[in-house]
Amino acid sequence: MIQDPFKPAKRVAGQRQDVWSIVNEAAAAYNQEHGAGSVVNMGQGFFGYNPPEFVLDAARDALGKVDCNQYSPTKGRPRLKQAIADAYSPFFGKKIDPEKEVTITTGANEGMLSAFMGFLEPGDEVIVFEPFFDQYISNIEMPGGKVVYVPLQPPKDGATKTTSAGEWTLDMKELESKITDRTRMIVINTPHNPVGKVFSRDELQAIGDLCVKHNIIILSDEVYDRLYYVPFTRAATLSPEVANLTLTVGSGGKCFYCTGWRVGYLIGPEHLIKYVSAAHTRICYSSVSPLQEATAVAFEQADKHNFWEESKTEMKGKMDRFNEIWKELGLPYSDPEGGYFVLVNLAKVKLPEDYDFPPHVASRPRDFKLSWFFIKELGIAAIPPTEFFTDANAHIVEDWLRFAVCKDDEVLEKAKERLRGLKKYIQ
Amino acid sequence: MIQDPFKPAKRVAGQRQDVWSIVNEAAAAYNQEHGAGSVVNMGQGFFGYNPPEFVLDAARDALGKVDCNQYSPTKGRPRLKQAIADAYSPFFGKKIDPEKEVTITTGANEGMLSAFMGFLEPGDEVIVFEPFFDQYISNIEMPGGKVVYVPLQPPKDGATKTTSAGEWTLDMKELESKITDRTRMIVINTPHNPVGKVFSRDELQAIGDLCVKHNIIILSDEVYDRLYYVPFTRAATLSPEVANLTLTVGSGGKCFYCTGWRVGYLIGPEHLIKYVSAAHTRICYSSVSPLQEATAVAFEQADKHNFWEESKTEMKGKMDRFNEIWKELGLPYSDPEGGYFVLVNLAKVKLPEDYDFPPHVASRPRDFKLSWFFIKELGIAAIPPTEFFTDANAHIVEDWLRFAVCKDDEVLEKAKERLRGLKKYIQ
Ligand SMILES: Cc1ncc(COP(=O)(O)O)c(C=O)c1O
Ligand SMILES: Cc1ncc(COP(=O)(O)O)c(C=O)c1O
Repeated sequence: MIQDPFKPAKRVAGQRQDVWSIVNEAAAAYNQEHGAGSVVNMGQGFFGYNPPEFVLDAARDALGKVDCNQYSPTKGRPRLKQAIADAYSPFFGKKIDPEKEVTITTGANEGMLSAFMGFLEPGDEVIVFEPFFDQYISNIEMPGGKVVYVPLQPPKDGATKTTSAGEWTLDMKELESKITDRTRMIVINTPHNPVGKVFSRDELQAIGDLCVKHNIIILSDEVYDRLYYVPFTRAATLSPEVANLTLTVGSGGKCFYCTGWRVGYLIGPEHLIKYVSAAHTRICYSSVSPLQEATAVAFEQADKHNFWEESKTEMKGKMDRFNEIWKELGLPYSDPEGGYFVLVNLAKVKLPEDYDFPPHVASRPRDFKLSWFFIKELGIAAIPPTEFFTDANAHIVEDWLRFAVCKDDEVLEKAKERLRGLKKYIQ
Repeated sequence: MIQDPFKPAKRVAGQRQDVWSIVNEAAAAYNQEHGAGSVVNMGQGFFGYNPPEFVLDAARDALGKVDCNQYSPTKGRPRLKQAIADAYSPFFGKKIDPEKEVTITTGANEGMLSAFMGFLEPGDEVIVFEPFFDQYISNIEMPGGKVVYVPLQPPKDGATKTTSAGEWTLDMKELESKITDRTRMIVINTPHNPVGKVFSRDELQAIGDLCVKHNIIILSDEVYDRLYYVPFTRAATLSPEVANLTLTVGSGGKCFYCTGWRVGYLIGPEHLIKYVSAAHTRICYSSVSPLQEATAVAFEQADKHNFWEESKTEMKGKMDRFNEIWKELGLPYSDPEGGYFVLVNLAKVKLPEDYDFPPHVASRPRDFKLSWFFIKELGIAAIPPTEFFTDANAHIVEDWLRFAVCKDDEVLEKAKERLRGLKKYIQ
């Protein structure tokens, strides 16, 4: 007989409080004190505004169609697979087969889980760079995979002057030294969250060569693929050999400002995609139908509406306007090459010595204290990036905070105004 | 170095062709020959009509709200959890806490996976009745669980006369004999797919007593909980002891005719729900936001629109009207006590001896041949239920086919007309 019937499986059992709940609870407490909606939330990467009207219209239309409200095929709606194949074929420099080389998932998140579930046996290793998107870890561990970490190193002078996010570097020797007989996959993320780095062609080529040499599947998380401010290379375009072992991950939510729609996709060779689909079928059965249909229309019509150009220009504008404040305050930041996150170095900010942090914050690295202090004293929520590092490497980013700029311009202006309150703490 | 980089994990590796693709491909071939949409598809349990207007309106409204298009909290939108707590509290005879006792998932499907992921360690056993909803099996095996089967036995005279679906019986002795030290969970499905049985209070009580005695978590799949034509008992209402170890699973898609929306939910005590949520967060992060909001409104307004009453009456009407054809043909069926599936016994149908079945059908039990024949010769798709049995027990249902009646009345009439073509094959 089972002794403790309610004992959870190890994969979900008690862990320390995650960054999202710490930040959200602190933000909620601020709102409680100062009135609903008064905190400026630059924490999580959701958009502060709606998808474009042509995309919303497509969703409303889809809701009127019987088949768009019922189960989609497990691999996704044919129209969406076709629209994605059409949208990406020019980038990939080849005709993508919508039936065999594209599969639809419940957000990029469940798409990545499906890839891990499709290929990992217990004990298989996956190389992940630090900082990492936090879901990678549980997604790799769920099928019994082992995460092997390689840290990105910040710019040498990142604490004293503003540098380019491209200056965060990967030690290729270290990367190669981590490859073992059990290494089955490597996760790349470009443009990178939270660093804002767009991996250069040379960097990707070096990684790709290693993967070809060692037969490692590349899972290239390119959910910010429409937001790059320097030349952007896709892993799958490096060479036919690399393409043959690369799965590219995309997100309708990130493309079209609707993170809550949960439409993701993977593109890759048939011998990889078919097992991602098989895993996805077993996880979610199929993904949300009417919003798949709307995402299909979004891809079909994006060019006509000049959406991609405008979306990139708009986001880069938000990024630059927001970052003015750091220049004004004399605080160095890591200037993003892509995406909508900026890492700011706050080594110069002196937190009051007798400040009363709650135990679950006091016990964490300095960035958690900075995050707490920013919410409580300035009313601005930002994310402490040590959450995206192993304990051993957390010190690398303990002076940084991550801000999401995918917010309305007034919100960004309000944030800047509040950040001026930081002056008296800067040394 | 990895020898075969593209070798899939065992959990997704090659299996025989599943019933859905066999049936869908045959149906597609029929349509190819006779024109698009010409097959009458009574196979998969999707609705042939739209959700009610008040639900669609709610979805269209939600699409206009910024926060409804962005990530929901991982446990679900507060409004939906509240609406579900309010809707179910009267059934459960207690006030359900929306924050602690309800969690939202990506369809009931991913909800069940989350429950298994939340509690199963490799080697843990889960008892499942045959016939089973096919996704249970992969969902249990994904976290390394072992499925232990107990067959429901069809009515003794089910091949010769129409009987009630309630006459499919569970051998309680056999069930108890299957419990071991590793039994952690049992799956109940009531109203049952594909049998149409609504488990009686006595049957549930006997199962519940065993679970209390042996400390086994009950996962009660009640996705057809609004469609019962005899008194319906919920496992969680048997006693406080049973409630303490019961997770109830529901599906917005099944309630409101929108299987493609992928909104599911689990209700249960906090000590169970919290690990289901934790697993769900790791699987999908969060579920589709605007359709969660719409489902909240659907639950809030259903009574006002007399939706539940009408929905049940309408489905029962479809069921009875469709089943007239079996009386006309002199074929016995298992009269459903709930849900929208009917099992029909086709022992009396004589398939032509020299009929040319393709190898992947010829190698399967007789019900696969019946299904193939019905599509090819009559233009009607139905599901062979041996797919929902282990090989050892498949013989139990090899003369039956499952028909879904959640289709427009004209479609049902067309189906009946076509089924008259069966006369010449009936002995
Ligand atoms: C790097 C990265 N990958 C994947 C995701 C998840 O994308 P989705 O919302 O489509 O699941 C995110 C979301 O923040 C992300 O930052
Ligand atoms: C018994 C049973 N459970 C669960 C499900 C899945 O429900 P959902 O579409 O909400 O994932 C189905 C769908 O057919 C079912 O028949």
